[in-house]
Amino acid sequence: MITLTSDFGTPYPAAMKGVVLQRTASEPRLVDIGHDFPRQDVRAAAFWLREVLPYYPPATHLVVVDPGVGTDRNALVVRAGDHVLVGPDNGVLRPPARRLAPEGEIEAYVVDETVLESPDPASGAATVPTADAGPVGPASNTFHGRDVFAPAAADVHGLEPDALETVEFLSPTDEWVDLEFPEPTVSVDRATGEVLVVDDFGNVITNVPGSFLEGRDRIAADDEIVPVGDTFAAVGVGERLATVGSHGYVELDVNQGRGDEAFGLAVGDRVVLEGLES
Amino acid sequence: MITLTSDFGTPYPAAMKGVVLQRTASEPRLVDIGHDFPRQDVRAAAFWLREVLPYYPPATHLVVVDPGVGTDRNALVVRAGDHVLVGPDNGVLRPPARRLAPEGEIEAYVVDETVLESPDPASGAATVPTADAGPVGPASNTFHGRDVFAPAAADVHGLEPDALETVEFLSPTDEWVDLEFPEPTVSVDRATGEVLVVDDFGNVITNVPGSFLEGRDRIAADDEIVPVGDTFAAVGVGERLATVGSHGYVELDVNQGRGDEAFGLAVGDRVVLEGLES
Amino acid sequence: MITLTSDFGTPYPAAMKGVVLQRTASEPRLVDIGHDFPRQDVRAAAFWLREVLPYYPPATHLVVVDPGVGTDRNALVVRAGDHVLVGPDNGVLRPPARRLAPEGEIEAYVVDETVLESPDPASGAATVPTADAGPVGPASNTFHGRDVFAPAAADVHGLEPDALETVEFLSPTDEWVDLEFPEPTVSVDRATGEVLVVDDFGNVITNVPGSFLEGRDRIAADDEIVPVGDTFAAVGVGERLATVGSHGYVELDVNQGRGDEAFGLAVGDRVVLEGLES
Repeated sequence: MITLTSDFGTPYPAAMKGVVLQRTASEPRLVDIGHDFPRQDVRAAAFWLREVLPYYPPATHLVVVDPGVGTDRNALVVRAGDHVLVGPDNGVLRPPARRLAPEGEIEAYVVDETVLESPDPASGAATVPTADAGPVGPASNTFHGRDVFAPAAADVHGLEPDALETVEFLSPTDEWVDLEFPEPTVSVDRATGEVLVVDDFGNVITNVPGSFLEGRDRIAADDEIVPVGDTFAAVGVGERLATVGSHGYVELDVNQGRGDEAFGLAVGDRVVLEGLES
Repeated sequence: MITLTSDFGTPYPAAMKGVVLQRTASEPRLVDIGHDFPRQDVRAAAFWLREVLPYYPPATHLVVVDPGVGTDRNALVVRAGDHVLVGPDNGVLRPPARRLAPEGEIEAYVVDETVLESPDPASGAATVPTADAGPVGPASNTFHGRDVFAPAAADVHGLEPDALETVEFLSPTDEWVDLEFPEPTVSVDRATGEVLVVDDFGNVITNVPGSFLEGRDRIAADDEIVPVGDTFAAVGVGERLATVGSHGYVELDVNQGRGDEAFGLAVGDRVVLEGLES
Repeated sequence: MITLTSDFGTPYPAAMKGVVLQRTASEPRLVDIGHDFPRQDVRAAAFWLREVLPYYPPATHLVVVDPGVGTDRNALVVRAGDHVLVGPDNGVLRPPARRLAPEGEIEAYVVDETVLESPDPASGAATVPTADAGPVGPASNTFHGRDVFAPAAADVHGLEPDALETVEFLSPTDEWVDLEFPEPTVSVDRATGEVLVVDDFGNVITNVPGSFLEGRDRIAADDEIVPVGDTFAAVGVGERLATVGSHGYVELDVNQGRGDEAFGLAVGDRVVLEGLES
């Protein structure tokens, strides 16, 4: 199984799938995690991958949110327990790797693009790039999803996780970019956190643990009083609430509406939550 | 085969797919009906499922348009002939069930969430919720698509339809929410109906049967005269027409444009159609 | 394998998939190329299919961008080497066919809709349309994706390419619509071209070959001076550049932004590029 994640929209993911299908004899299942993640937003993709991938059986996860495409940032293959992640070395692979496996079962490899066979732009078939290919050579500078990451994912798919060290185009590395989500400051009655992501519904997902809401009927969020609800429907349609979201964090939401608009909050905004007496 | 329908956008459907794939040994085919249905619009989802699912071979259909998530509304598994529908008890399952099978072959079951194994939020693997799990327990209150409906669909998938009565977490019920679409009033030369849905092209799909247009060259729609066309291209680009849509109803459309904007009509609007002399 | 391409959005592609799955015993893999291509834009779809399909192994490609649906334009099945394309005769199939195979391996067939079995609107199962079906007959006039192209694709899928001539509902034709992309005028220091497409990132893809940028540090695009970059990140975030895109053409882009907005360019616009001294 190969999952695919990108910020590509249409139709670039289909080119990646073609490359994978043309290179793999094993007919892998392909599953889209999503291709309309916020553009060039490494942190958002890392968050969602961390939350979604643990629900998958062991798989190869192809991840391309890559503002540095074509620069000298590395392409990585990362083993995390029984899972394998393939993507750029910009931090996006760390949070899901940490959630998928303990530190001792995580190993990173750099892809040597001069050894990996890139697809031929004319026929789409795998080909060895030649040194004199010039600026329109087999591997583009702007679409490594198709020309580097998809070939790498196809070529490592189906290998036993501990066979990665034998792959010709992979070299182990200890130095790869980390990405950590900001930590909130939480005391008994006050939490200062940050908006991690806003989902497609407009729900504002903070980094404050849901336990902050335990035993409370209402809180103040940036000085505005909102009820705490177990469910969206605990308040009327169009009304605001604080709830424990499906990721275990405090969310600021609107029942059947957009929390981001109602609270005036966006990704990265600081948010102060205060517990109120009942 | 398991089809998936929701109003989730990205990436929540991918979490549901992971849960299904992790729980099913049978490697089911997954097919998306769509995940950008109008938010919390039970009627629109019911309409599209009724129109689309009959084109499928027997399958399990996972449906999550669920404004009442986390409340005491039931989770249902419904057998409709050779098909099985899984989703919330808010009416969304009735219209497709009625289209898929005669009344005598439709049976509904309530899901007992205390018996169904929910996925573990840490590993994603199936787990039995414990009584003392607290507010951040295995089953969230805001994402039953992942924590209740996907597990239920995975667990009933592949069963013979008449084996549902033996499933431990299912109890038969005769009381589940109905949803009926409004009926138009149609006489020889006049039909008073309602806009059922607007599709992604902006085509306005009414509940007036297409037969109302038979033998007519033009009609008045809310007092505006429009030609009747067999095809969009029967009128010039950007011009309005009435036609029999692919669902058999009268549609108010614009050739290569948006009928909803040209006619000023939205879902739920009343519309009066009058037959005109040629 | 059957790929699917349309401008349908949601949920019409799911109806096509149901028809295909109900008609094929061979359980084909279904892969979406995309369903949110620009509406009724035959040229854009032709461009993307030409660029993406060569990355696929031999497959049946179902293509429905069809502003003339229901008119007397033909439905086609086209063999292009080991690939088969199914779609309307409006030019959309020519550019991908030419890229997939040499002229001598391209053969077109007209679909006889009176012989092809269309799906029954009630059950979705295949049925023979009757002569007296009237305006709400089995084959709609507005959704040939479901009623003509999907059945045709399902029925030819899995045949050896040279067996198409034996299919009862196909007749060979030499007359089918061509579509050629405009050619640029290129001299040593000046190229006059056209915007072929704008991708989802807002990158402006011209028809000027990337070789025009070779050895240049900067060019003038419609009199505005922009640097030439090997990668998006060659310029600062939000800054403009000219680069060789992944299709081999000159693109006018913005690093992590929208080139179409920054350059004020849209599909079909004429663009003049001039080489500047370093």
